[in-house]
This record gives sequence, structure tokens and C-alpha cells, in this order.
Amino acid sequence: MTRLRLVFLGGGSNSAVGQAHYIASQMDRNFEVVGGLFNRQADANKVSGKHYSISPEMLFPSLGEMIARKNEYDAVVVLTPTPNHFENLTPLLQANVSVICEKSVTSTLAQAIEIQSLIQNQNLDFFVTFNYSGYPMVRLIREMVLGGELGELISIRVKMPQEGFLRRDRVTGSVNPPQLWRQTDGEIPTILLDLGVHVLHLASFTTGMNPNGVFSRFGNHSSMKGVVDEVEILAEYENGMIGSFWVSKTALGEQNGLEIQIFGTSGSIGWKQIEPNKLVNANQHGEVREIRFGQGFSIVDEPRYNRFKAGHPGGFIEAFANLYADIKASITEPNNLGREMSFAPGISQAKKGLEILEGSVKSHVTREWVSV
Amino acid sequence: MTRLRLVFLGGGSNSAVGQAHYIASQMDRNFEVVGGLFNRQADANKVSGKHYSISPEMLFPSLGEMIARKNEYDAVVVLTPTPNHFENLTPLLQANVSVICEKSVTSTLAQAIEIQSLIQNQNLDFFVTFNYSGYPMVRLIREMVLGGELGELISIRVKMPQEGFLRRDRVTGSVNPPQLWRQTDGEIPTILLDLGVHVLHLASFTTGMNPNGVFSRFGNHSSMKGVVDEVEILAEYENGMIGSFWVSKTALGEQNGLEIQIFGTSGSIGWKQIEPNKLVNANQHGEVREIRFGQGFSIVDEPRYNRFKAGHPGGFIEAFANLYADIKASITEPNNLGREMSFAPGISQAKKGLEILEGSVKSHVTREWVSV
Amino acid sequence: MTRLRLVFLGGGSNSAVGQAHYIASQMDRNFEVVGGLFNRQADANKVSGKHYSISPEMLFPSLGEMIARKNEYDAVVVLTPTPNHFENLTPLLQANVSVICEKSVTSTLAQAIEIQSLIQNQNLDFFVTFNYSGYPMVRLIREMVLGGELGELISIRVKMPQEGFLRRDRVTGSVNPPQLWRQTDGEIPTILLDLGVHVLHLASFTTGMNPNGVFSRFGNHSSMKGVVDEVEILAEYENGMIGSFWVSKTALGEQNGLEIQIFGTSGSIGWKQIEPNKLVNANQHGEVREIRFGQGFSIVDEPRYNRFKAGHPGGFIEAFANLYADIKASITEPNNLGREMSFAPGISQAKKGLEILEGSVKSHVTREWVSV
Amino acid sequence: MTRLRLVFLGGGSNSAVGQAHYIASQMDRNFEVVGGLFNRQADANKVSGKHYSISPEMLFPSLGEMIARKNEYDAVVVLTPTPNHFENLTPLLQANVSVICEKSVTSTLAQAIEIQSLIQNQNLDFFVTFNYSGYPMVRLIREMVLGGELGELISIRVKMPQEGFLRRDRVTGSVNPPQLWRQTDGEIPTILLDLGVHVLHLASFTTGMNPNGVFSRFGNHSSMKGVVDEVEILAEYENGMIGSFWVSKTALGEQNGLEIQIFGTSGSIGWKQIEPNKLVNANQHGEVREIRFGQGFSIVDEPRYNRFKAGHPGGFIEAFANLYADIKASITEPNNLGREMSFAPGISQAKKGLEILEGSVKSHVTREWVSV
Repeated sequence: MTRLRLVFLGGGSNSAVGQAHYIASQMDRNFEVVGGLFNRQADANKVSGKHYSISPEMLFPSLGEMIARKNEYDAVVVLTPTPNHFENLTPLLQANVSVICEKSVTSTLAQAIEIQSLIQNQNLDFFVTFNYSGYPMVRLIREMVLGGELGELISIRVKMPQEGFLRRDRVTGSVNPPQLWRQTDGEIPTILLDLGVHVLHLASFTTGMNPNGVFSRFGNHSSMKGVVDEVEILAEYENGMIGSFWVSKTALGEQNGLEIQIFGTSGSIGWKQIEPNKLVNANQHGEVREIRFGQGFSIVDEPRYNRFKAGHPGGFIEAFANLYADIKASITEPNNLGREMSFAPGISQAKKGLEILEGSVKSHVTREWVSV
Repeated sequence: MTRLRLVFLGGGSNSAVGQAHYIASQMDRNFEVVGGLFNRQADANKVSGKHYSISPEMLFPSLGEMIARKNEYDAVVVLTPTPNHFENLTPLLQANVSVICEKSVTSTLAQAIEIQSLIQNQNLDFFVTFNYSGYPMVRLIREMVLGGELGELISIRVKMPQEGFLRRDRVTGSVNPPQLWRQTDGEIPTILLDLGVHVLHLASFTTGMNPNGVFSRFGNHSSMKGVVDEVEILAEYENGMIGSFWVSKTALGEQNGLEIQIFGTSGSIGWKQIEPNKLVNANQHGEVREIRFGQGFSIVDEPRYNRFKAGHPGGFIEAFANLYADIKASITEPNNLGREMSFAPGISQAKKGLEILEGSVKSHVTREWVSV
Repeated sequence: MTRLRLVFLGGGSNSAVGQAHYIASQMDRNFEVVGGLFNRQADANKVSGKHYSISPEMLFPSLGEMIARKNEYDAVVVLTPTPNHFENLTPLLQANVSVICEKSVTSTLAQAIEIQSLIQNQNLDFFVTFNYSGYPMVRLIREMVLGGELGELISIRVKMPQEGFLRRDRVTGSVNPPQLWRQTDGEIPTILLDLGVHVLHLASFTTGMNPNGVFSRFGNHSSMKGVVDEVEILAEYENGMIGSFWVSKTALGEQNGLEIQIFGTSGSIGWKQIEPNKLVNANQHGEVREIRFGQGFSIVDEPRYNRFKAGHPGGFIEAFANLYADIKASITEPNNLGREMSFAPGISQAKKGLEILEGSVKSHVTREWVSV
Repeated sequence: MTRLRLVFLGGGSNSAVGQAHYIASQMDRNFEVVGGLFNRQADANKVSGKHYSISPEMLFPSLGEMIARKNEYDAVVVLTPTPNHFENLTPLLQANVSVICEKSVTSTLAQAIEIQSLIQNQNLDFFVTFNYSGYPMVRLIREMVLGGELGELISIRVKMPQEGFLRRDRVTGSVNPPQLWRQTDGEIPTILLDLGVHVLHLASFTTGMNPNGVFSRFGNHSSMKGVVDEVEILAEYENGMIGSFWVSKTALGEQNGLEIQIFGTSGSIGWKQIEPNKLVNANQHGEVREIRFGQGFSIVDEPRYNRFKAGHPGGFIEAFANLYADIKASITEPNNLGREMSFAPGISQAKKGLEILEGSVKSHVTREWVSV
């Protein structure tokens, strides 16, 4: 099995997301990380290179150099802060380089549209990593929902409360501030680019549908004045399904309370990220069972999701590795799986999310219902 | 200790709510049920009378007779279907009879306003039983929130999903229809009079605040066409707090998923009706603890809430009995507690709920933000 | 429906168990408490009498007087400390008075044997209140197990950890000592008379079997030296089933962690007292479901266990009331139900428990396996 | 950072444990797998070699050849069935080859003693992988317990119920038999070599103590007659602590219910493998909190245990990788950490476990208390 060669743009040794992408990309031997421009500072770049055992000659001094040597790798993993995505993606795509891009693909819908048109003119692979969709149980939800096991869909509720903007450190007594770029909001508030895109992607991923209208309210309760830290979105779908979406960075007690609940006319399903290896499922009699690995539910029992035996919990890093396996398959078996298959989302899905978010921004400002 | 004498209007032996009121009213020896017009049919009335050990001469043949003999009891408990409340309450109040009324006090805001003006012209006691506020832990939430333990309030989320309109019986394979009067909607959909008033009352009870604007979406997914069975309300408060309220009769797997979550700048709190004897509480460090009876939290450790020792769960009926104890105290110690004390809500609180619900109806119809 | 007349021996107004028996006995209008000797001190007796609205002439100054006036009530409820049971029961039974006795019936097996022989010579009703068996879900376990739904039984595990002997009060910083009579151990340690009898009764109640041998270890970890506060019992049954029983008064964090788990060749079942309204049930495929009220499980859906609608938790006091309803039925419908029916245990079951406990004491002392 | 070179003995591509060791050993770039004798059949060996991207010349045809070329790697990972461990370990250790051995190190105490003496005469590294001790929260338990946060220890309860010997496949309707070598028992029943060693290791790991006596009962309830599938061990420690250990392969509903509970005089702690990222901790006031990552508990907040941010669950494979990191450190920093450090257990700990198990076997057979 040939490994594909990746280079990282961003994601240095002191970056949580870099570490996660690194381990995930290698877990199943689908990729190797052969080079990178981990940090713009040369010294820091070297430290990261050493950390990842990168040979010194594969540490690129600039994005231009990385692009110039594009024949030495198969794809670039873009891990810079979201506000820099657009300026980094543009030259890469213009140079026909394949990209795996950490979400959110861009900061605005307009940028996403431009990225999409760049991609359409090239012969390259482009993926956006919505990592939570790598959890096998989330994929089982999708399978069950699309297979009609819940009947006609009535209601979807996805929430992602976090506490980072209010949680006081035990020792210092004060709130640890987020990265600088998260301390201001652009056209779309950062919280929506951070959390909102996940919530909307998961709703779309599990139901195969997107809302056609939204109403939204934003809040700002942390000491960073003007930075949105809580968003409620009430959405409606063509079939009458109601969507309720909540993201927050000021929900004390919630480290990452990502949760999905879907109700249909003949059943319901619930999943919590913090206990990712089980589903709670009710049937048309209101009877509730717990769905686990190793019980004959086809998708989650595939060997690829069972790196050890049922009864041993899998976690976030493995979910991420599942996504990398999809990306590998999508690249190497395009005829089989389609270029932008369901499990390895690309620009069009990422763009749809930004469209809904821009609608939510408009709704908040006007206090009106906005079609999307 | 003198017991107050109650008579029931409605609430016969085949009525769940009648049984609950009966046991609750007597548990702590605060009241005795001395008479009633349980059913309009004389035969059924006799059966209920026997069931409740009522002496035959205290079975009233009509509301008029009950009113005429008002000196033989201290208060009437109104347990008829909600749509009949107004027509029953009016003559009772005009005759200066004290009333304990099952929620929702009336079907419309206009009726509630009329009831309020009737009460103001009389010298009587009037209570509306929002029973869930009788749970000691709900009262501890109120105490903690009003005492500032959560800091400035950010967000309140109350939901009350139920499954009755979709749940298919194991044996018959079909949905058991609700009572006839619940199969049509008036000005305010029945689901809001059934569940919505609880949700709004609990939000008001625990925070001491009411929203100043709402946006709402209704759904109808059961086979009873035109009957609303799911409602989302997005609300905003003067201090910037966001409220998210959800009620449903089509949420398979949820028998009665009443849940309260409140987030503030220095903590959060969560409570589920199905496990009513504990609170989940996070502090400003995001540290989560479980609050129980018997741990020194003043309000829940009062003897009145501890009919046995900590470690032995209390339930719904006992919560109801707590409310009856409040009503007794409110009647017999009015100087001490105030005529319409916080724990024994009266017409003004009930009216406020209907006002918000009428705003929600308007919002759903117009798809616009509605001030309330 | 005629109510039976009870008098209390012990169980005064400052007694948790008295309060619980009082409410439970009256909840379903099966009994009324007409008199008592609540406290040996006349003044305290009066206070309790007033608390329970007992007419002064029904306050007995002595046990002798209570016995002498035995035609004024139907049964005596014995609620004195366990060590006094024997001396109180003896004259009552000799006088042919019916008794409802709080567990443990006596402090020793020898006493229980004597009580049994007294009963056999009389024409009276005698009940021991093992209250936890009043929970409807515990009765459903019994029904499922005896009905063969778990197949052949393999293993039963019942535990009842509590924390009272170590838990330090938040305010005082010290452990609140138990009642004086719980500060010493007799032949059978008090913890076994308090908690052990429940655990063994529940095992017997749910499986219909008793062990034929035990091995036991006792511990003493509180500051009350010489008072056993933790007991492990390993038991074996004729069919090869293993029993594991644990009781403790030094398990910090456990207010009353009573839990039953039963495993069979084709399923398993689990129940926790702190969430008493559900069962966790696995089938032969290892699939796990949650069993609730209102789902068609015959026994728990009986009207007597549903004082309000499914979805509203019942608690300990109601479980106790269920037991009182059984006692009433057992007295008034003896032909129908048998004098010592399964739900209203009498002397023979109570005696069996003491027999196993004496075996456990012997095993602890000798460090040997003891047949029982 | 230099990676150490591993070769596998056993652990082919169709082996769950092989896959787990492979991923775990590489996750943090501490090791690379450079060769192996994955299967005795040459063809299967090639398939595994290809699966793991092993260069063909590093596929050893025999153990002898592997030993002969011992300078081409740093250690052998022994992943053959437990009954073959002794025959494989002996020549490896005699040839002074370092070994990482999957538990149980051997099938009997006598073999373990022999292995220990072999090791003492050589200059090599020897590790036994008790993987569950790699979970960060298990290490936090150890730190808290040894640091005295629970006070004097009273009681430890470790259980590991599984269902594999009874669980019927949904499709076939029959039980999937375990590997052939697990279908018979040797001197020590296989269930104890499979599960018992984990339970005892975790008790020892978290408390730093081993019992000085045991009483045990075995059960056999599956259709494999004569194969022990349930074991209860009641143990006592020098300080009076009681240990209760339960392992089962016939506990329907339990995929792998590994759970640790430790009670002390000033607190308690509980952990479940299926939700491995939290602890439940009670203090001396009986107050219960949930301990999480990212809350300032030193050990779990070390960077090595946080491959991504708090709020994203880690799983079994990562726990395993933690153990491999310990092994790497133990090899490369021996002066710093000690040759057989606490986190990377070696022969003496493995031997102690077998000693207790042999005591348990003796106790079951004689039905007597056995000193260990």
C-alpha cells in the first residue's frame, strides 16, 4: 500500500490541531508527512520539523517555495488560522496543488465562492476536514436516517456548547484568552467559523438536507466586548422539519458538549461527542435501546472502525483518522467513490455552511426571518 | 393543626390529575377533600365519591349547588379540562369562592385578564398549580440563581419533549389518541396550554425574569392534522439573556423529558425531571459537581422536603404535595408569606405566561419577532 | 372501602421512619393511624400525637395499656429500635395482636425462631416491612426472573453502600454520630440488621432462591471502634449461581447506593434505587434497553403503581405505600392472596435472612465457608 | 528523536491485538516496526508483512532466525497466545534479547519464576503490557491514592464483566466461539489469564498494595463445559482493606465493563473503562464531582496525554500508546526512571499477579481462605 505524501502549512509542534492531523494522517498508514512550512519563523519551523522528524531539506522557507516544489508531495494540509485560509489557498489552487484544508474553508461566503471557481478550473483534490463526521456512530446515524429508520424527519437539534471564554483557571483565577485571531470577529463571527460550521455540517451530513430559512440571535457575555460568544439558530427545512442549533463559548461546565438529536415519525436517535461510542435510539413504541459497536450494525462494524475489539472505546483522534482514510480513498479510488464523496466533504458542502451562517448573521442584525 | 376543607370540580376517580391532587393535598395533613362534583354524570360522580370516601351529601349535583353551599368548605379545586376553566371559574369567583386551579388557568390571555379583574374585586385566595415548581431541587435552582451564584445570567434553556402523539402501542400497533379536547386547537394551541405554560413558568420561577420578545415556529407531524405538536420559542430578556424553549408531543423516546439548564457568567446549573433529586452544577472553573439532598443546601434540607432520609428518592406526587403545603401556608399565614407568594403562583404569573404564548402564536403566524 | 386502624409503637414525630410509615400507610386510604405510644416520655408522646392529629385518649401511656385496648385498632406498627423489637413483639403476639414490624424483625436468629413459634400458636397477621421491595420495578425484576426471561440464573450482585459513618458535616467538620443503639454491635452487627437484611431479602425476593453457603469478611474503619461498618458476603446457590453482597456505612459519595444486578444465560437486568423508575435489561444478543413505566410491562403498568402518568417519577414513599397496600390486601383478602403472600413478607422470610447473617458472622470469625 | 526498532512475534494482520500494538507503538513516533514473524505459515506471514509495510527481508521464517539476527532490532514484541509465551520467551531471554510481552506473561507461576530468573542473569529490558494502566485517568487515580487524597484505604472493588461466552449473534443465533486456545483451561483458568491479571494489576497499580489472602469461587455457565467463565475473589490487605474482584465472560449486556472503585476514610474514586476520560470523586463530605482533563490535575494535563484539546475523548488505542511511551522512556532513560518503573511493569509485578491467581485457584478447590 503506497502512502501519499503530505506537507503541512501551519500546524507546528505547539499546535493542537497540527498534532491531531499528524497522528490521524498516519494512524492507518495512508499518508506520511514529508515536509512543511509549520511556522513562518525559521527557528520555530526547525523545531517543528525536528518534532515531526522531517528532513531539514523538506522544511520550506515560504509558501512560494512550497508551491514551486509541488512535485515532491501529493497534497498540502492547510492548518493556518481561518482568517489566513483564503490568502493561502488561492496561490496553492492556482498552482494546481491538491489541498486538505482544516475547516472553516474561508471566513466568508464570497471567498468560498471564489475558491470553488478556482477549483473547478483545475485538476486537483480538495477536502475540508469536518472531523466530527469521522466518528463511526455519526456515520451510523446518517445511515439509519437516510435508510428511513426514523421515518419522516420532524426535528433536528444540534448543540455545541463550550466554556473557554468564561472558565477561570484554578491557579491564575483569570480566563485564559483564546488565540489573538479569535479575539475579533469578521463578517461572520469567529464562533460560527469555529463551532457553527461543525453544527451545520453535522446536520447536513446526518440528514442529507439543508434548511431553507433561519432566524438567529447572537449574544456577547465574555469580557471580550463585541465578540459573539453565543448563537442560537432556529431553522426550517422544506419538509417541515425544524432545526434548533446552539453554539456557545460561555457555557460553564461544558468542555465540548457537542450533541446531536434527531426525531422522526417512527423513531429518534441521540449522540453525544463526549461518549462517542454509543447511540441512544428509540423506536415507534418509544422503547429506548443503546446501540454499540459489535452488535451487527453494518457500518460501525467495518474493520476500518475497529482498530481493537468492541468494548474498548475509540476517541477523537481515531475519528480524525477515519476521515483521513476517506480522503485517501477519495484520491486513489476516484471512480469508485466520487471525487467529493459524502465522507470526505469538499468545497460545495463547506460553501453551503457559510451561506447559512451569512443568513444567520443577517437574521441577527435585522431580527427577521432570512431565506437561505 | 387544622386541615382546610377542599371540594373538587372535576378530577374524578378515572382522572390521573384528580388522583394526583387528592394524594398531594392530603400527604402532609394540610387539607382534606370533603366533597366534590367530580363528574357531571350523577352515576360517575357517585363512583368517584365512593373512591375518595366522600360522604354522599357532599356530592354536589351542579356547580350552582356547590357555590350555594360555599360555607361548607374552604376552597374549590378546579380540575376540569382547560377549555372549561373560564366558564367554571367565573361564577366561583363572582361568588367570592377561593380556588385552586390546575394550569393553564384559562385558554386565552383575554380570559385570564377577565379572571384577574374578578379576583381583584373580591376577598379570596386564588392559586394556579404549576406542579413542577414543587420539586425541591427546582426551588434550590431559584435560590441559587436569585442569590447570584451563577453570576449574571446568559442563557436559559427549558425543554419538555413528550411522545404521546406518535408512540404506537405495543399491542394495538396504533397511537392512543389523547382526550377529545386535546384533539383540537384554539387560539393558543393545546400543546402550549399543556406544556408551554410549564416551561415558561419554570423559566420565570427560576430566574425571576420574563422575556421581552419572542420568535417562534410551530410544527404538526402527528396524524391529527392541524393540531400543533411541536413548538420552538427563541426569546430574549432585558439583560441580554437568551431563552430557548422547546415543547413537543412527537419526540419518540421521551416520556416527559422536562429539563432546565441555566448558564451564567460564573456558573451553570442543570436539572432533569426524570431524576429530580439531584442538580448538576458547574462553577466558574468549569468544575462539575452533583448537588444532593442532605448536603447542607439550606432549602432542600428543610424538614418539609425530607419525608424520609436523604438517599431515598422523592417523586412527582411529593413535589405536588409541597405545592399544596405552600398553598396552605399562603392561605393561613398571609401576613407572613404574602397572598400570592413566590411558591404558590396566582393569576398574575399565569397571565404573564399566556401573554408570552400569544406572542409566540403571533410570531409563528407572521414569521416575525414579537415584543411581549 | 374500609380503612384498617393502626396504632404506632415508636415512630414519633422526630422519627424519619415514623413519618414514612405514616404517609405510606395513608396514601391509598387503606389505613388510618388512630393511636400510638410514639415515645415513652409522656410529653414527647403528646407532641407526636398532636403532629399526627391523634385524639388524646388514643395516646397510650404504656405497651400494656395498648395491648389491653387491642379491640380499638386492627394492628400495631412496631417502629422502635431493632434491639427492642423482641421485648415488644413478645407481649403483643402473646396477646394475639396483629403486627406490622419494621425490619429487622429481631436482633438474632434465636429470637426470630421464638417469634415464629409465638405466631404459629395464634390467629393473627404478622408482616415485616422490607420497603425496597415495594418499588414496582423491583417487582418487575421478580416477574421477569421467575418467568424465565433471563434463562438459568448465573450471578446475582446486590450492594448497599452508604456513607454515614465517615461523612463529615460541612459546617461542624465532624461526623454526625448515628443513634446510640447503632453505636454498638450485638451478636449480629447492626449494619447487617440495618442493611444486610435488605440486601438478602431483595436477592430472595427477586430470584425466589436462598444461598446454601457463604463466606464473609467484615471491616471496621470508622472512629467507632469495634462496630462493623463494611461487610462482603460471597454466597453460592444450589443451582451454581454465585451471589455477591456488599453493605457499607463507610462508602463516601454513596448516600444509599442500593443496586441489584442479575445475570442469566439469556439476559441480565440491573436496577438502582436512586433512579428507581427504570430497569436496564440486556437480552441474549447483549442488546441493552431501558424499561420504563407505560410500555406494556404488565406488572408496573397496574393502576396501583401509577398514581400519576408515566414520565413522572415515583419515589421511596410511594414504594412504601405499595407495601402497605399489599399488607391491606393480605389481611382483608387472605383467601385470595395467602396470609403471607410474596409481596407482604412475614416471619419465615425474615427468619431466613437472619439465618444467613448468622452464617456470615460465623464465616467472618472462623474465616471458613459456612453452610446455611 | 530516534525511534526504537521493534519486531513482532505473532500479532499478524488478522489479529486485533497485533493491530493495537502496531498503532500504539507508532503513534508518538517512539518506535517503528521493522520486522516480524507474524504467523508461522509463510504465506500468512507475507500477507501480514505487506499489511504492515515490512520489507520482505525482515520477515523471519522462524524464531531461531529472529534471534540470530537480534542486532537488527531493539526489542521483540511477543503477541502469541498466552500458552505459548513461555516457550517463546525462554530462547529470546537466553539470547539476551529485550522483550515487550503481552500479558499474561506466562500461564503459571512456576513459569513466571523461571522467566524472572532468566531475566536476572541478563542485561536486557523486559516489559509486560497491562494496557488499561495506560489510561491517564487510571494514572490520576494512582497519584491521588498514593498522595493520600482518599485517606486510609478501606475498600477496593475492581470488576471486568464481559459477555462473549453467552452472547448470541443476531444473524446466526449462536455464540461465536473464542479462539481454540481459550476453549480449555490449564492450571490457571484462561479467564484469569485474560481478565484476572488486569483486575489484579489495576488494584496493585492504583493502590501500591497487594492482598495477603484470598477466598475465591469459580463458575461455569457457558456451553463450554469445564471452562471457568466467572470468578469472584474476596481479598484482604495488611491494612485491613477489603478487595472485591469479579471477572466474567457470561455477563450479558457487558461488552467490557471494567470498573475500579476505591473507598478511603476521606474520599472515594470511581472509573469506568467505557467512559475513560472522567473520574467520579467524592470528598470527606460525600460531595461528588466529576474530574476531567484540562482542569489542572497535574498528571492528566501533561502534554503527552493531550494529543488534542480537552473535551475530545481519548480512547483505548491512545492509552496503549501511553504505555509504549513509558516503555521507550524506561529503555532510553533508565537512570531517570528506573528499569522497571511504575508505569512500565515488568516481571515482578506480572509474577505477583500469577501468585494471587494460583492462590485463588487453590481457594476455589479447597473452599478455604488462602494466604498469598
